[in-house]
Amino acid sequence: MTNSALFKQIKAKASYLCVGLDIDLEKIPPHLLKTEDPLFSFAKSIIDATHRYAVAFKPNLAFFETYGVQGWKSFEKVMRYLNKQYPNHFTIADAKRGDIGNTANRYAKAFFETYGVDAVTVAPYMGKDAVEPFLAYQDKNAILLALTSNEGAKDFQFTKEQGLLLYQKVLQISKSWQGAERLMYVVGATKAESLQSIRKIVPDSFLLVPGVGAQGGSLAEVTKNGMNSHCGLLVNSSRGIIYASQKEDFANAAAAEAQKMQTEMKSYLEIAGLV
Amino acid sequence: MTNSALFKQIKAKASYLCVGLDIDLEKIPPHLLKTEDPLFSFAKSIIDATHRYAVAFKPNLAFFETYGVQGWKSFEKVMRYLNKQYPNHFTIADAKRGDIGNTANRYAKAFFETYGVDAVTVAPYMGKDAVEPFLAYQDKNAILLALTSNEGAKDFQFTKEQGLLLYQKVLQISKSWQGAERLMYVVGATKAESLQSIRKIVPDSFLLVPGVGAQGGSLAEVTKNGMNSHCGLLVNSSRGIIYASQKEDFANAAAAEAQKMQTEMKSYLEIAGLV
Repeated sequence: MTNSALFKQIKAKASYLCVGLDIDLEKIPPHLLKTEDPLFSFAKSIIDATHRYAVAFKPNLAFFETYGVQGWKSFEKVMRYLNKQYPNHFTIADAKRGDIGNTANRYAKAFFETYGVDAVTVAPYMGKDAVEPFLAYQDKNAILLALTSNEGAKDFQFTKEQGLLLYQKVLQISKSWQGAERLMYVVGATKAESLQSIRKIVPDSFLLVPGVGAQGGSLAEVTKNGMNSHCGLLVNSSRGIIYASQKEDFANAAAAEAQKMQTEMKSYLEIAGLV
Repeated sequence: MTNSALFKQIKAKASYLCVGLDIDLEKIPPHLLKTEDPLFSFAKSIIDATHRYAVAFKPNLAFFETYGVQGWKSFEKVMRYLNKQYPNHFTIADAKRGDIGNTANRYAKAFFETYGVDAVTVAPYMGKDAVEPFLAYQDKNAILLALTSNEGAKDFQFTKEQGLLLYQKVLQISKSWQGAERLMYVVGATKAESLQSIRKIVPDSFLLVPGVGAQGGSLAEVTKNGMNSHCGLLVNSSRGIIYASQKEDFANAAAAEAQKMQTEMKSYLEIAGLV
């Protein structure tokens, strides 16, 4: 999806919310475990309940992969459902893949062609030839890890070379790659103060921001420091929305949480004059 | 597998060869495409033909994942076959996974429990909490990317902080992680001269060395600079072995290439007094 097509969706919904589908069978309402495909049943209910408040959905691949072939069948069903029912929603396979050229090609083919996702999260450690195969798809995106929101982020992402931190170097260098206009970046919201420096390096790129909600990031801070003239933000919430209730009312509870975030987002978009 | 158990296998076979299963349906002998499961048929033939010369097999997940659910079924079959027929061989899922704690848990569960592999390759960018869940399994290993053999390795892995390169920092810092005795490292063979500096940081760890053969690394150089008192090396060859012939004699041709490497390895193990 081009930045402008995504911005169009953001304006239409007055939302830059991405709902993360980190589906843990130990946390979903117990009555769903009796359905034929609990992963899909839960995902479908959450998608149907929240789609009007969200512009993107982000299935977390580990939570499908952990169930082997059955899990991949569920992921395939989720993607088929999304592409059929909600073709205007931006879909992100949160897979954090990263491998050399001829292997990266295969991952790109898997996600973009076999499953029909719009974007894949990708790890930067192996450099350019691990990412460019994803950027070769004209209407697809790669979302490169820059600054993550976890504790371990500090182990390597702040490695400093001539005044530049590694995550800043990742942003800087990746801008020169073939197809870089289709790059987006993962930027952890718990480091909202870093967003200003990030925006200096990639003023125009979309940033996928996890860590708002359960991980403690503030939507107001992220928006203040990260929003650009075409919004440029996708703020993800997973647990805060999908596990808002673990009872039979879970879908309504998820919708209420998503709506709360969308309402706040709408106000920020209005202040910025974007809707 | 413990280092000493792996060393025992290396001595028994007089080999530290890992056969990489990067199975490209466009490169396998055409007559196999008519079988019910070409990925599995090819893998089985290669495994049967080369197992006596190798201590490890490394399926590359991208080449299975790219075929969706069918590809995962094939991977499951390959792992079941390996675990049943060749339980003493060390199996490596070359998946390069890396994500935050609760997600990393799921990946570890998938590979170690669902598929029964011995080791998974893991990316370091997200730090400690992306790797430790893999190290929590007492009889399993995580193989952390340090220095890779691809062109893009130079983009970030040589980032220099106070005289230390990023890949050296990855080695250094990861040594302090919980379960670090179960860590191994990916070290690209095309940088054989770097092996000496790597051995200073991780003298005892096993190194998985890709890039010998098709990618131009020299087995003699790698061995000279990387071997330790319990061998400490797994040298991988994928394309050089599995595509030695693309005709009906492919299995014999693969066996011949594997044997050639094993014979050379045996001579180095003898010189080192390890067999």
